[in-house]
This record gives sequence, C-alpha cells and structure tokens, in this order.
Amino acid sequence: MDKYSEIISLSKRRGIFYPSYDIYGGEAGFYDYGPIGTLLKNNVENKWREFYVFREKFFEISTPVITPYDILKASGHVDKFMDVILTCKKCGKAFKAEEVAEENRKKMECPECGGRLEEGRINLMFETGIGPRKKEKAFLRPETAQGIFVNFPFLYQFSRKKLPMGVVQIGKGFRNEVSPRQGIIRLREFSMAEAEIFFNPENKSHERFDEIKDDVMTLIPAGMDEIKDTVGNIVEKGIISNEALAYYMALTKHFLLSVGIDESKLRFRQHMPDEMAHYASDCWDAEILTSLGWIECVGIADRTAYDLKAHMEATGVDMTAFRLYDEPVKEKKKVIIPDMGKLGPAFKGKAKEIKEMLEQMEPSDEPIRLEIDGKEVEIGKEFYDVVEREITITGKNFIPHVVEPSYGIDRIIYCILEHNYSEQEKEGERYVMLKLPSSIAPIKAGVFPLVNKDNLPSIAREIEMELRESGITSFYDDAGSIGRRYARMDEIGTPFCITVDYTTLEDDTVTVRWRDTTEQERIKRGKLVEWLREKIN
Amino acid sequence: MDKYSEIISLSKRRGIFYPSYDIYGGEAGFYDYGPIGTLLKNNVENKWREFYVFREKFFEISTPVITPYDILKASGHVDKFMDVILTCKKCGKAFKAEEVAEENRKKMECPECGGRLEEGRINLMFETGIGPRKKEKAFLRPETAQGIFVNFPFLYQFSRKKLPMGVVQIGKGFRNEVSPRQGIIRLREFSMAEAEIFFNPENKSHERFDEIKDDVMTLIPAGMDEIKDTVGNIVEKGIISNEALAYYMALTKHFLLSVGIDESKLRFRQHMPDEMAHYASDCWDAEILTSLGWIECVGIADRTAYDLKAHMEATGVDMTAFRLYDEPVKEKKKVIIPDMGKLGPAFKGKAKEIKEMLEQMEPSDEPIRLEIDGKEVEIGKEFYDVVEREITITGKNFIPHVVEPSYGIDRIIYCILEHNYSEQEKEGERYVMLKLPSSIAPIKAGVFPLVNKDNLPSIAREIEMELRESGITSFYDDAGSIGRRYARMDEIGTPFCITVDYTTLEDDTVTVRWRDTTEQERIKRGKLVEWLREKIN
Repeated sequence: MDKYSEIISLSKRRGIFYPSYDIYGGEAGFYDYGPIGTLLKNNVENKWREFYVFREKFFEISTPVITPYDILKASGHVDKFMDVILTCKKCGKAFKAEEVAEENRKKMECPECGGRLEEGRINLMFETGIGPRKKEKAFLRPETAQGIFVNFPFLYQFSRKKLPMGVVQIGKGFRNEVSPRQGIIRLREFSMAEAEIFFNPENKSHERFDEIKDDVMTLIPAGMDEIKDTVGNIVEKGIISNEALAYYMALTKHFLLSVGIDESKLRFRQHMPDEMAHYASDCWDAEILTSLGWIECVGIADRTAYDLKAHMEATGVDMTAFRLYDEPVKEKKKVIIPDMGKLGPAFKGKAKEIKEMLEQMEPSDEPIRLEIDGKEVEIGKEFYDVVEREITITGKNFIPHVVEPSYGIDRIIYCILEHNYSEQEKEGERYVMLKLPSSIAPIKAGVFPLVNKDNLPSIAREIEMELRESGITSFYDDAGSIGRRYARMDEIGTPFCITVDYTTLEDDTVTVRWRDTTEQERIKRGKLVEWLREKIN
Repeated sequence: MDKYSEIISLSKRRGIFYPSYDIYGGEAGFYDYGPIGTLLKNNVENKWREFYVFREKFFEISTPVITPYDILKASGHVDKFMDVILTCKKCGKAFKAEEVAEENRKKMECPECGGRLEEGRINLMFETGIGPRKKEKAFLRPETAQGIFVNFPFLYQFSRKKLPMGVVQIGKGFRNEVSPRQGIIRLREFSMAEAEIFFNPENKSHERFDEIKDDVMTLIPAGMDEIKDTVGNIVEKGIISNEALAYYMALTKHFLLSVGIDESKLRFRQHMPDEMAHYASDCWDAEILTSLGWIECVGIADRTAYDLKAHMEATGVDMTAFRLYDEPVKEKKKVIIPDMGKLGPAFKGKAKEIKEMLEQMEPSDEPIRLEIDGKEVEIGKEFYDVVEREITITGKNFIPHVVEPSYGIDRIIYCILEHNYSEQEKEGERYVMLKLPSSIAPIKAGVFPLVNKDNLPSIAREIEMELRESGITSFYDDAGSIGRRYARMDEIGTPFCITVDYTTLEDDTVTVRWRDTTEQERIKRGKLVEWLREKIN
C-alpha cells in the first residue's frame, strides 16, 4: 500500500475521518470526522486559537455561512470565483480544464468517449435561496473572510480605532468543485481558519518583526529558484514585499511546526501573477510535501484595500480608518473671505446665503458663478478677498489594507498524519505509530488494568474519570494483552499509557509508559494529573 | 427600555451579537457573534463538551451541513419538515398560520391589505445543488442528528458493539423560517449541540440514574398542571416514561444551571401529541422564562427506532445491534430432517438441492411445494421426518432506540444574558453588570495599570500576556479612571480585575478585585495564574 492509502485506511479504521454518507454510497467531496478525528481537529483549531487569539490578541468572530447575493457580488465572487470547465457534448461529463490531458485539450476531444468538448466557465459557489419562496438569492460562503470585512466598521469602533487590528474566524467554507478527489484534500465543504489583519497601507512594518527576523524560511519566489534565508534578509532584499506579510508567513511556520509538520517538508511558494485570486496583489502559499506531492495548505495574501473598497462602493458605508498624525501638520491654504459690506447692499436678503456658499469654495482663477433661486449669478472679485491662511491638519482618513493568512484545516490534518505516521515490523506484524505532538493528540492517556480482577479495573476506571474531569482525554481499555492495548493507543498517537497493577494496590502508584521511547516510570496516583498536564503542554 | 431591548443593546454595544450584514441593511434571521460573543459561545459549547464528551464519554463527530436529498427523504424531512403558511393573493405576503390573528384566519383575510389568503405548506429546508451543473439536489441540514444516524453502523463497530452508546455533534443547523423574528431567538442559521443515545429498547434504564434520582424538577406533563417532584418519584409514577429520558432531562438541568440559568425560571414541558416532530414518540422541552415569555431551549425526545429504521429501509444496510443474552437461551424447535435414502432415487440429480431447501424451511401442517427448474413439485411426508431439537440462542438483533437531547445554543446564550443581567443606579448613572459564572465569562480578568507612568503599564501588559499564554482570557485597559475600567469589565461579566499599582513595584503583588462582591485582595504576581485557575473552575 502507498502512504496515501495507509493514511486513508488508518483514518477509516480508527475513526479519524472517512467519506460521508457511506451507507448511501457516499458523496464525492464530503468527509466526516469520527470520534478520534474530531478530537484531533478541535485540538488543531484550539492550537490555532492559541497563536492567533491568545498571543496575537486578534478578535475571533463567528458569522453565518449563508451569504446574501449582494455581498458576494460586491466582493467579486459572483463574477470571478470561476473554474474553466470542458463539457462533452456527447457523454455530458464535465472536466476541469487542467484535468484534461494536453493532447485531448488541443483537439477538444473528450478523454472518456472521444466526443466534442465545449469550453465554459462555472461559478464555484453553492447557491441557495432565503425566504418562504426561496426568492432571495444567496450563497454558501466561499471563504469566512467576507463575514469579517462587512463587520469592519463595527470592529474598528470596538477596537477603539486602533490599527493594526486582527480579526479571525474558524468555520466552514464551501466550494462546489467540478471534480473533488484525493479524499480530504479537495473537499466541497471544508474547515478553514482565517485571519484578516487591517493595516495602515503607509506602514506595513510589524512591531514584533524582531522576534522572527532570524527564522530561516524556504521560499520559491515567483519565477525564481528555491532559496533558504532568514526572514530579515528576505525582507531586506525585497523578496517578501513587507514586514507584515513576512511576519505572518513566519507565524504560519511556527504554527505548522507546533502541530507536528516536518520542517524539512515545508516551503513557501509565491503565486505567479496569473494564478492569484481576484482580490490579491501578492500571495505566498505554505506548501507541505506529502506522498501526493506538495500540497497548498495555507495562503498568505496581501488583499490590499480591495474588499473594504468594494463594500464601501456597494453600500456607501464609510469603511475608512483615521490616522492621527504624530504631530499635527500645518498647511498653507488659500481661502475666500466674503465682504459683507458689499454683498449686503447688492444682494439684500440673499447676501447671507451667498456668503456661506463662498466660504465653502476653493479659490481659483475662474470667475465664480452661483445658482441663486434657480438663476445663475456671477460674483465679481469685488465681493470677496482671497487670503492665505495656515490650517492645522490632525490626521487623515484611509481605507486599510489587509494581510490574510488563510488556513485549510482538513489539508493540514492530512499532512500531520502523514508526517507523523510510521510503520515497522514487530513480531512479524505491521506496527503503526502516530508520533503526534502531545498537545494535539486526540487521547492523551490510555488507562489499563493489568488484569481484569482484584479491583484493578475499578481503580483504572476511577483514574480514567479523574483525568477526564481534569480535561485530559483518556481511554479505558481492558481488552486483550497489554501489548495489544499499547498498539491500539500508539496507532492513534496517544503519548502516554497508564497501567494499574498489583503494586498500585500496595503503594498507590501507577506505571506510565511513554509512546516515543517506550520507557516506563512509576508515578504517584495523586500526582498524575499534574504530571500529565506538565508533559502535555 | 424593556429587558429584551436592554440585552440587544448591550450585545450590540459590547460585541456579543448583532444582526449580520448590517452595512447591507441586514438579513432577517441571521446574527453575528462579535469578539465577546464568540468567546462566550465557545465557552458554553466547551462546557457542554465537559458534560457530554468528558463525563458521559460520548463520541463527538463532525459531519457536513450539506446533506443529499436521499437522506432527508428517508428521514421524513422532505415530506414532513413543513410549516403551514397563508399567502395573500393580493399583496403576496406570506404568514405562518399561527401569526395571523384568529379573526383574519377565519375569514382568510390578509392582516395587512385585506386581500384573500390562500393556505399552503412549505418545506423549511434550505435547498442547494451539488456538482458542476448543481444538478444533484441537496439541503442544508435541519438538524445535526442525521449525520449521526447514518454513521451508526461504523460507530457501533467503533464502540466495540457496546450499548448504550452516545454520539454528539456541535454545529450549524438551518431552517428557512417564513418570518424570523425576536433577534437571536428564531434564526434561520443557528448553532446546536445534539446528543443521540442509542439504547436497547428492552432496557431503557440508566446505570447512573441513582446520581440524579433525588433532583427536584419542575414539569408540565401534557394536558396536566405543573408539578414539582424528584426525578425518582416522577419516573415511578410513570410521568416520564423511562429512566433514560429522565436522566438526560436531569443532566440538561445540571448543564443549564452550570452556565448560569436561574433554576426558578426553568421548567420541562411535555409536548402534546399534535405538536411533536414527525420522528418523536415523546418529547420534553426545557423552557426558560425570559421577558419574552417561556422560550424552548432544549428538546429531549424519544425518537424510538424511527431514524435507524428509515435509513435501513432506504439503503438496505444493516442498522441493527446485537444483544448477547446473559445466559444463552435454549429453545425447543421443530426441524425438518430430509431422508436422502428416499429423495435420491426419486429426484436423482436434484435430490441434494431439494434436501438443502427442505432444511431451510419451518415445518408446518401444509403440504410442501418447491419450485424445481421452474416447475412446482409437491414433496410428500414420506421424504422427510419432523423432529424436535433443542436450539441454543446466544442473543438477538434489534434496531436500537434513540433518546436525543437537542440544545439550541443561541437561545441559551440569550437566556444566560437575561438571567445574569442587572442594572442599578450608581452615582446618577446606569450601571450594568453581567454576573456570569466565571467558567463561561468571555474575559476572565481585566488588567489595569493604576496610572500610565512609572513602568506600571509595561508590568500590566506583561501580566496580561502571562495570563493569555496560560489560556486565561484577559484584557489590558489603561483608558479612563479605574472606576470606568471596572464598569466596562462588569458589563461583559469579567469576574476579576487586576490592578498594578505602586505597591507592585515594591513587593510584586497586585490587587485583585472580585466582580460580585467588589472585595479586593492582594496576590503575589507569581501565584496569579494558579489563583485565577482555581477560582475559575
């Protein structure tokens, strides 16, 4: 079996993930997470929260998946979130352009039946309708980001008008793929974690850049060969265009390593201009090497002011931020000073209105014409003076730019499994082990009675419950030999196994066995929770 | 302002929840959770996990929201998940039948324009289509439960064929309401937490029933007056039909109290037969009293074998469980023993086939007729003997029954806010406080420098970060007087506020102020994390 099949088989066997609606023959592009997979997924998402919500102090919000038409029209998704597809006029099958072999594509010949292919573009969003007659057109969100962008005015107030401001969302995204494949890698319904960081475009530096500037990254800049250098050097050379983008690339690397991705199988590849999403001006993908090749797992994009501008134009709602200058700027400016002594006698009751209109205008060399009671009237230079004044400007309004790290959770989970999977021969049998980092392991501790008698099972059950009540996932197992039970725990990456034996009855200690070294240690039962907590974090 | 408006206003002001797509004019039936609300919602969901996943040891799984037609056809939702609506032939407006006043309904007159109303039934599911031409009809799930039911055969294997088995799912549900209203109470897209517990229908007792049998519950049984009694008595009197249902009702009460619901405003009301969902044979709603009246927040239903049977019929896949008898049962059974000495000569080459057919049959008084090579042949009694044998039966197959506690997370959150909201006059101003239980409070600790100088801010920021890195949500605030900062924290239910002052510089202690008593205590900075952890749990 190849590695991919091994992982799929393990995942199905041990309830990590498997195709949805299996008893109905399955539905391409949809996967379930089973009991072990859901624990793993929750752990990965919570680890992501540790990075982005706890440490970066970004706001997490939660917005609907059903998104009205107008929002995705404004964001460009209605018109540009498209795939080119080739449909066979004869057999009716549809293919993504890149899936059809060169030769067939040139001849526009169906790779399955030889019929004539026709080119078309289809939108990748799932459609639905809101209301009793489903009249109001809507979509399932293609990304969680739009729910953040339309919230910008509120969140900017909420943050007391401070930038940079980071906002995140973890949730489902949808993409009506033409031909979903590779199991969990290309799903129609997937889990994503996105962060949108709003910046002043005049300042894309990052205040914590120093913390990551010596990190070494492997990069493939667009149209160039692979390089390996420190983040500091890379930004200095202009290969990554600004500190903010580089900081989140480095943070992405830290996150991925923390959940068990192998550093030597991670690189950042810059998009070619023609492969960029419609909203991005620059984008780097974190790609992870697996048996299926390099898989794009995180996109770190510079979305500029694209989205906020689009929603501002569509709604007329102010999406700007205000930047107070460090020092107010004084500017010389010409202003019009109306002469009421002359306006009064000439325009009588209208004089005051004219005065106010003049004060609003910028002086120019053109003669001034005003509309008074529907008639155009020329106001000669004798009615006002032009004077130079000093004006104090305290700051300015601008539409923030956005840097977006967007994580595909399902793909990352697949890669974690591949990178931590090992298989060996043990007593003539295949022995599978997942060396997951303790912090994301679905089950932290297996709890076993050495034998099923003499009160050992009930002590083991008590310990299992103590751990569970302390938030440490544990699994009681009394079936088969201890070796078999270790094997079952190793297979799902459980870092510790606790055995209750006859010595427990004497001195209240248990044996803890480490997955990675198979070393054993005796621990006082009363210290177990604390001991495990420390080892896990 | 009435209480409802107070809560809505607080929620909007402090980023708990607010209508979605506000800058686009809003979309009825959709709400966003803001930064504070998302923390609260995550805490409530994690508290629910503590009850159902950690303590009850149920499996959590995660399945798609997009559900193919066939599954919801089999489950009855395509045909029965309906609302009766009245549509005006003149103005086109649609109303739920119960919204139209009695008098208008009798005359079938539109309450808005007086036009003629027409009765119709509409399905409440959001529709979508899967695949490049959206040809394959699908729905957004109306409940997370179906994703669990179709997983039953796998999960039953996974649990090593043990019943009872509990499986939970936390996620989005969708209901295309005709007229969503009351903000977050009746949403079109909502968060739910559901548990499906699979039982042997011959044994609906519960092994931990003793733990809750003395709990006092307030109930309104169908067609009866309110009663208040212990769970033990209620089950004994047959008011709740079995221990399993009663256990999960009691557990529901424990959960709701733990997240801050007021016990005196909680009751369980049994559905009348005509108000039950199509799949339920019995259902009790946990109703919570608010300023809007009693709100149904949790439904605890006995779904019997309805769903598993439906999917078994639709797919032909075995959805049964097997129960091993404690003791094998010996039964006397009459069997047919073919006499090959006679069959052989009479039927030659067909004799063996006839023998095997006879062995499969149950003896009866009727003459035996078999179809051999398309012809019916009578087999006389001379060709076989009927003998009584003792058969050993080790167990039997059955379709499990399901008890389902189904929680509406959004409604519960609204009720939590109402029950913990208090308002008082303080120095001539309105002072709002949320007395949330510490374990679900969005922010656990405010961290303030007494003044913005002498290094106090940087120490306070360090403390904020220490807490965050230990998983304790904290919020640094240096704006305005300490009193103002307390007020802002009290308003979102923050249980502790920590102030860094000049004494901190001398002895490394900080002041901790308790929200509920406003008492203050000095704590060593190094002990702070531990101290808070203990108080929070």
